[in-house]
Amino acid sequence: MSVTEISPLEALSRVLTDDMERVNVLIRARMASDHAPRIPEVTAHLIEAGGKRIRPMMTLAAARLCGYEGDAHIKLAATVEFIHTATLLHDDVVDESEQRRGRPTANLLWDNQSSVLVGDYLFARAFQLMVEPGNLRALTILSNASAVIAEGEVLQLTAAQNIATDEATYMTVIRGKTAALFSAATQVGPVIAGAPEAQVQALYDYGDALGICFQIVDDYLDYGGAGDGLGKNLGDDFRERKLTLPVIRAIALADAEERAFWDRTIGRGKQQAGDLEQAMALMARHGTLASTRQTALDWAERARQALAPLPDHPLKALLSDLAGFVVERVN
Amino acid sequence: MSVTEISPLEALSRVLTDDMERVNVLIRARMASDHAPRIPEVTAHLIEAGGKRIRPMMTLAAARLCGYEGDAHIKLAATVEFIHTATLLHDDVVDESEQRRGRPTANLLWDNQSSVLVGDYLFARAFQLMVEPGNLRALTILSNASAVIAEGEVLQLTAAQNIATDEATYMTVIRGKTAALFSAATQVGPVIAGAPEAQVQALYDYGDALGICFQIVDDYLDYGGAGDGLGKNLGDDFRERKLTLPVIRAIALADAEERAFWDRTIGRGKQQAGDLEQAMALMARHGTLASTRQTALDWAERARQALAPLPDHPLKALLSDLAGFVVERVN
Repeated sequence: MSVTEISPLEALSRVLTDDMERVNVLIRARMASDHAPRIPEVTAHLIEAGGKRIRPMMTLAAARLCGYEGDAHIKLAATVEFIHTATLLHDDVVDESEQRRGRPTANLLWDNQSSVLVGDYLFARAFQLMVEPGNLRALTILSNASAVIAEGEVLQLTAAQNIATDEATYMTVIRGKTAALFSAATQVGPVIAGAPEAQVQALYDYGDALGICFQIVDDYLDYGGAGDGLGKNLGDDFRERKLTLPVIRAIALADAEERAFWDRTIGRGKQQAGDLEQAMALMARHGTLASTRQTALDWAERARQALAPLPDHPLKALLSDLAGFVVERVN
Repeated sequence: MSVTEISPLEALSRVLTDDMERVNVLIRARMASDHAPRIPEVTAHLIEAGGKRIRPMMTLAAARLCGYEGDAHIKLAATVEFIHTATLLHDDVVDESEQRRGRPTANLLWDNQSSVLVGDYLFARAFQLMVEPGNLRALTILSNASAVIAEGEVLQLTAAQNIATDEATYMTVIRGKTAALFSAATQVGPVIAGAPEAQVQALYDYGDALGICFQIVDDYLDYGGAGDGLGKNLGDDFRERKLTLPVIRAIALADAEERAFWDRTIGRGKQQAGDLEQAMALMARHGTLASTRQTALDWAERARQALAPLPDHPLKALLSDLAGFVVERVN
């Protein structure tokens, strides 16, 4: 990418400027509370910290790509951002995180109680918003996604520290915690547009593959990134004993001595200085960071191919480029 | 009440036995998870601990009272119980509670993380369930109630420890955290039955007044009860520095010395042995437990009177008796 070129994300956000401005206005209006000022304080801290708004943009792009001309996509895009924000608040409580988007987390600035309850409020606001357009199929998709997200989070919690976790479990976790909201965000676009089933399926498949790719890249960068400027530190997942793809693959290829290392550091959480470096050396020895990168590339390609049934449209090309852009972070 | 008489709650549950059995079957089916066994474990611990299921019974009774003959009331009743259960899980995290319904809380048996995430799952399951009957007005009522509940919880959190909290704020808190779910539970009954607006309004008003009465009684019993067998200890609210009605009224009537007492114990949380007894003596001096009891009785009467526009029906008489029963606990 040359210095004068803009990223596909930036290009998308320019094409969707008017819609996104309406989404942002709606988000600010609905994060208010008549009675509890703590709610907009906590929400604004997170929502105005410069998130990329990639999920609501997916809904807008999918709807417009299918020729949608109404207003419902604005409410559903705001719904998607509220669900995302609620899960971030609860995730940071569960992970005891101290940084998010380069700033102190809400649980640190206020307390866990506020994060739990404000998250609940945003979930409820999301449901109010999704009900308003009155499209029952969109409602079913988004409420199902909410359940799958929570299920993925619980599964991640119980799989953490368990070095027997396999790739199938990992896929279930990331499909839940990450891909389910991407695929719901893209699928509701053609649904409200009344697009043919092939397009509904195509945009579901695209969102699913993009979300999986996105999470695998994230998990790769936790070991392979040189700081991504997003407030995530190298090795956070290792310290939190999360079983992510590069680790799962390294454990699968471990000899007895290596297995003992993983059992001690991840299984029993007895970590000491030098362990992160040792973990990265083991992943390098078995090539699991490289193979994780390849898996991310494969999912990006799947996302691009999923778009085939869709009509030619400038947004189709941008969504295709976006899949490549997501995985570019690993280069 | 003579020893041979059954309580209105028991009478209601007998009349609604078949419906309640279907609700219980549905609850057990929907608290399952394909991937995360932690979810039904945590949920079963709470849901099968012998809660009275008063909220789902309200939905069933309201629907039947308005002549409803379909199936949607079963799903909406299960929705209401899931929302209630989700809020209990999150409440116990927020309050750091160790007992609920006479058993150790989920946050104590598992951990806060499980309670937060399983609560999120149950919220999502509630939304899936409420979408299924496809009644947009019922959806609006229940999603609005969810937002009002969360708002009430946040307001309670920020009002705690603030001895300037007045009765108006207290009413907003309890309308949110408790009455909103009661009034939504009763209101969706006539809505799905297609009953006249006067009946919809009557059952909303009934649920609102019953919920307010229920919470005032609960707050009274925290100081006035001799142990209610529900695992709640005398003075829990005092220790958690919650501003409930008997305390708010005692502070409003306090002289300078008493005000210093409330400021130290509730405002600054510096509690020592004998403080609970002193707090109760101050409430007795100003008659605020007695006036709180009277306020509960007034709301029970309002609940009974709200039923006037409804047709004669055995369930109408039972709902009327129930209002008296709720407040009988304070005698």
